[in-house]
Amino acid sequence: MTQVDVRIYEVGPRDGLQNERAAIGVDAKLQFIDLLADAGLREIEATSLVSPTAIPQLADADELLARLNRRPGVRYPVLVPNARGLERAVAAGAEAICVFTAASETFSRHNLGMSISESLAAFAPVLAHAGEAGWWTRGYLSTAFGCPYEGPVAEAAVVSVAERLLAAGVDELSIGDTIGVAGPSDVRRVVRALNGAGIGQDRLAMHFHDTRGTAVANVSAALDLGIRCFDSSTGGTGGCPYAPGAAGNLATEDLVYLLDREGLRHGVDLDGVLAAAAFISDTLGRPLASKVGQAGGWPA
Amino acid sequence: MTQVDVRIYEVGPRDGLQNERAAIGVDAKLQFIDLLADAGLREIEATSLVSPTAIPQLADADELLARLNRRPGVRYPVLVPNARGLERAVAAGAEAICVFTAASETFSRHNLGMSISESLAAFAPVLAHAGEAGWWTRGYLSTAFGCPYEGPVAEAAVVSVAERLLAAGVDELSIGDTIGVAGPSDVRRVVRALNGAGIGQDRLAMHFHDTRGTAVANVSAALDLGIRCFDSSTGGTGGCPYAPGAAGNLATEDLVYLLDREGLRHGVDLDGVLAAAAFISDTLGRPLASKVGQAGGWPA
Repeated sequence: MTQVDVRIYEVGPRDGLQNERAAIGVDAKLQFIDLLADAGLREIEATSLVSPTAIPQLADADELLARLNRRPGVRYPVLVPNARGLERAVAAGAEAICVFTAASETFSRHNLGMSISESLAAFAPVLAHAGEAGWWTRGYLSTAFGCPYEGPVAEAAVVSVAERLLAAGVDELSIGDTIGVAGPSDVRRVVRALNGAGIGQDRLAMHFHDTRGTAVANVSAALDLGIRCFDSSTGGTGGCPYAPGAAGNLATEDLVYLLDREGLRHGVDLDGVLAAAAFISDTLGRPLASKVGQAGGWPA
Repeated sequence: MTQVDVRIYEVGPRDGLQNERAAIGVDAKLQFIDLLADAGLREIEATSLVSPTAIPQLADADELLARLNRRPGVRYPVLVPNARGLERAVAAGAEAICVFTAASETFSRHNLGMSISESLAAFAPVLAHAGEAGWWTRGYLSTAFGCPYEGPVAEAAVVSVAERLLAAGVDELSIGDTIGVAGPSDVRRVVRALNGAGIGQDRLAMHFHDTRGTAVANVSAALDLGIRCFDSSTGGTGGCPYAPGAAGNLATEDLVYLLDREGLRHGVDLDGVLAAAAFISDTLGRPLASKVGQAGGWPA
């Protein structure tokens, strides 16, 4: 990779699209991923190897991975929930994988159909194989700032699950504000709690949703704390199943605009991101959810 | 006023509505202002005494001020551009007024039809009378972070116009990101330059537009600098005439959500703001531009 100050980890093709209702063909997904790589994105989460019945939008994951134009220097992680997903990941030649759990027990049961401990057990063989095979691995720690069922989540719960994920072998943790409720003070509170448990910024990525307009402010607070990896979704796709009409993932174009204003190198071209955002917006048949997608960059 | 950590200065009825195309009747405007006061807002900029031909949306300013239900403890500032506006302000019994200029010479000429110096001369009699009458006064310093014609604006230009406004007698400066381009670093740069010229946080308010999604982050950066007054517009009304479809003023509901998360007292009730936002959205016949307007508060 070229030298960057901040890594932008693109989650649009997986986390963004899995929450969109309009069915999208594999050709369009592959074109979207190519446009993202054209824009300079070097980490693009491509799809999820969950059960096709669980997330019909990503039922084409095997075909997508088989046809993926893997460019040198670009990482294409794929979400792998369990041993069955692992078989498919091996067959697809995966080299970077993600697992997913939550800080909230109730959210885990509702969203994954199992407890947090059961989810860790489910992907233990995935991480074991990844360790042997030398794959890059990431663990999503969702609902770290709030749960749609339980409300506020204690930072001790976040730290506990973070420690278990790291013990299970993940290289990086993505700390998720799944329902978009955090403010900058929450970011400081949770990151400092993780640091207090010996988990440093080099292991941490932040995954913000812009549901209540705080995502960019949260990135800014995390930058001040030395966090240097952020998840985002080109076009602001994703939505939130708990708040119809609400904004979804932090849009990559909004993140890029902030980082440009802050003078931080990230290797991504805003116009390229806007082109990919326009493509996915056209494909989905709805306006862009991002501010910069609507207003454009500046100076123009 | 009740004890607050942060003042929320509501600009919806003036700055918000003046950029909206749909004509709104004076009854609806008065109802909107009442709903804002119901929500706990204690500074509500009511209208502008500009020429009715310049801003037809606010041509009803005299009638609005005559009929305004002035509640105890609520300040209802009105924008007064010149000696003619001053006559109208006196006739309306105004006690709090605002004047408006820019950091960018080209913006001033395009937007006000005169140079910055000419604008200061135009409202000099307004501030002179206000001083004699003991009115509260505020000076808007627009395009402090960027100009649609000139591009980036030097902080020296901001400081220079700020000093002239204070010398002319304004009590408070509202430093405006008129086209919504600033990031947190810009906020720090401009506020520190003002501080360096001896202008303290007690004289400063920040006026952010959310055109590129940075407004909440900019508020957070300004809070860290000790700024304690922010302008916002309930419902996120305002738009930007230079970017069709783009977001306008920072929405009051998004600001309130942030301040609540940060544990800062402001005296404003989020549900009350959302009720006022829903009212103005219905009146304008378009969806709310704010994130919290769409998603709601949290915990719900």
